[in-house]
Amino acid sequence: MFGGKQSPMNSRHNPSGNRAALIAVGSELLSLGRVDTNGVWITERLQRLGIDVRMRTIVDDDEVRIAQALRAGVEHADVLVVTGGLGPTDDDRTRESLAAAFGLELTRDEALVERLRGRFAERGYPFHDEQARQADKPASAEWLRNRVGVAPGVYLEHEATRIALLPGVPAEMKSIWEEELAPRLTGLAGVARRTATLRVAGRTESSVDREIGDLYEAEGLEITLLAGAGELTVHLIARGAADEVAAQRLASAKQRLTQRLGADLFGEDDASLAGAAGRLLAESGLDLAVAESCTGGLLGGALTAVPGSSAWFKGGVIAYSNELKVLLAGVDPDLLAAHGAVSEEVARGLASGVRARAGADLGIGITGVAGPGGGTAEKPVGLVHLALSGGGEEEAWHLNLPGDRDAVRRRAVFSALDRLRRRLLQR
Amino acid sequence: MFGGKQSPMNSRHNPSGNRAALIAVGSELLSLGRVDTNGVWITERLQRLGIDVRMRTIVDDDEVRIAQALRAGVEHADVLVVTGGLGPTDDDRTRESLAAAFGLELTRDEALVERLRGRFAERGYPFHDEQARQADKPASAEWLRNRVGVAPGVYLEHEATRIALLPGVPAEMKSIWEEELAPRLTGLAGVARRTATLRVAGRTESSVDREIGDLYEAEGLEITLLAGAGELTVHLIARGAADEVAAQRLASAKQRLTQRLGADLFGEDDASLAGAAGRLLAESGLDLAVAESCTGGLLGGALTAVPGSSAWFKGGVIAYSNELKVLLAGVDPDLLAAHGAVSEEVARGLASGVRARAGADLGIGITGVAGPGGGTAEKPVGLVHLALSGGGEEEAWHLNLPGDRDAVRRRAVFSALDRLRRRLLQR
Repeated sequence: MFGGKQSPMNSRHNPSGNRAALIAVGSELLSLGRVDTNGVWITERLQRLGIDVRMRTIVDDDEVRIAQALRAGVEHADVLVVTGGLGPTDDDRTRESLAAAFGLELTRDEALVERLRGRFAERGYPFHDEQARQADKPASAEWLRNRVGVAPGVYLEHEATRIALLPGVPAEMKSIWEEELAPRLTGLAGVARRTATLRVAGRTESSVDREIGDLYEAEGLEITLLAGAGELTVHLIARGAADEVAAQRLASAKQRLTQRLGADLFGEDDASLAGAAGRLLAESGLDLAVAESCTGGLLGGALTAVPGSSAWFKGGVIAYSNELKVLLAGVDPDLLAAHGAVSEEVARGLASGVRARAGADLGIGITGVAGPGGGTAEKPVGLVHLALSGGGEEEAWHLNLPGDRDAVRRRAVFSALDRLRRRLLQR
Repeated sequence: MFGGKQSPMNSRHNPSGNRAALIAVGSELLSLGRVDTNGVWITERLQRLGIDVRMRTIVDDDEVRIAQALRAGVEHADVLVVTGGLGPTDDDRTRESLAAAFGLELTRDEALVERLRGRFAERGYPFHDEQARQADKPASAEWLRNRVGVAPGVYLEHEATRIALLPGVPAEMKSIWEEELAPRLTGLAGVARRTATLRVAGRTESSVDREIGDLYEAEGLEITLLAGAGELTVHLIARGAADEVAAQRLASAKQRLTQRLGADLFGEDDASLAGAAGRLLAESGLDLAVAESCTGGLLGGALTAVPGSSAWFKGGVIAYSNELKVLLAGVDPDLLAAHGAVSEEVARGLASGVRARAGADLGIGITGVAGPGGGTAEKPVGLVHLALSGGGEEEAWHLNLPGDRDAVRRRAVFSALDRLRRRLLQR
């Protein structure tokens, strides 16, 4: 999953203003095999701003160790982002560690205490005294407003470093990042950088790698390939002395990749395959219904994750039992008896049946053996039959998927969405 | 998500030999959202040996920053494990950083150089001079044999810290760990440890925190609370001089928590709420159907993530459009017209309608405004109506959920599963 290839300029290039350090605070991040997902997210967002992460530290709730990590961060970085340890309980020590690390004094913002008290009262929660700790900050710092949760973030500049303390709860961290912190960091990196992520379906990492080999040599361009569940992403970073140079390099690389990847390229940056299919549905004025057996609703879940999906998605049937395949999705019971639930015939029956029942233009049917049980020699775990019906055409295909129950189901959903997308592209 | 509380003994309790620091070296680990999987693996292996990771640092290929991380590690840890930066290329700097950090001198092991040269010759690879760098180590260090790859690991004791340098390639690191390093660390911590995770629904972190306050003082017990999307987890680590002491402390803590949390406790370790509800369905001999609007199939997806769910889950309807709420889920169109799609009446109609259509014992209906669009003053984003029908009883409830589209939908699914579970518990 994490294979990659990079041009060597990545490590040589070091202009001022673009070095970041991240600190994640929380004993739980160290003890339970948990992944610091905040750090991954922040790294990607900093990259968009042209800022490289040079050091990431995960540290437990110990004030001395947090303070040491803070000092190391200020020594090595222009931007230091700390997540976690801002809550009200006694082991939330990030504020105190900041003060200790840099000889600052914490003062309590009584106006903020009153606002917090008011918010708790509104929601009918008791306000315990320790909650007021969340209103402590050094006098030289500013608040970063938290619209999602209680504890605000803290921002200050110390020596030449911009320091932000953010809550560890991802939704709160992200909200503060987007609304309060990103604007303060924009334009900080001296070298211009433009980045893009291209999202690819239906290709392996090695096939793309071979095809774009010459692009690895392009000046000021860094390419990394990452493979996910069905999806492949091509990450591009173009650098230049001036923004227009970086922009031109990126545009040129994107153009060349777009040509070579053709219909396998389904989107850029945060695009999802469901979003790409949905946009094509919207453009074509068609709508869709689904009938899912082994995926149990995950295809519908992926489609409805797209805001505005009600314009082109009608819904459908979770046809998990054979009974509901007949009753709600309109599959012919004779087909079920003759071919079994996991069969091309039943996939076709689900697709055309739900299309008819829902009065939709297009219908998708999925039926398979997700495992771990239920496999036979003839129909092993990982066998999934899919069908797409509508537009005067009906097609069926099947997959033999590796991996566990979760992987089989997610890859089946990906395949359904990609086939739908390609069908719509051909129109 | 990462709020937490721990008994103060966590930071005070410091028997010698049980504190570890990890350092992962490599610029590539800091770019593009890559996860340091070695660190996760090593953390888990150290836990088995009774050793806690107190600090994890990921640092780029910069000799100064690596050396600083090494010094911080020795200052805070009894065991310091470094992965990466041991290869032959110029940006592999771990050996040099170790020497610089502690004032040691690197000497080349010429016998090892000859062995490496022989291995390359055997495989028909050219042996470039820079390969010989892999035979450099401080005189006070030992080699850790690498049976999988080329570069051996390095082991030394500096001040009171045991330091291991391991290759970053996971297969090589793991092989050296198992064969060479784990034997050197076994018995170091001098304590036995047992762990468990309890999963809780329907409680806030602070309410549990207050209720179990006295348990934080229990001898040899460490408690951490973590809040997720609806769920709260209580992580327990019990320690003792002997394994039976740790086991007895864990059992006692689990018993006390089980009593106090009552029906709010839904499972242990990897249990899911859907799995807990499913088990109760199976025990009661009842089955379930669902009709989902705003969650679009995610409830079905969660239920069918449980292996064997076909025994108690029939499926249902993704009633995303109003048309399908009527056509497939059997909602009375007059109710829709009178109250709107997001209403208690329609939630009830979905639950009872899908139950009747599917011939199921129980039915769940969900309808809400997931956002970001579609909210009004009367029905804002985050408003979700749910209903549970069957067993001679019908109940409806609603939620006003914070967060983005994804968070609203996931919390709605969690609430539906938890209400189902509680209904089944009451039987």
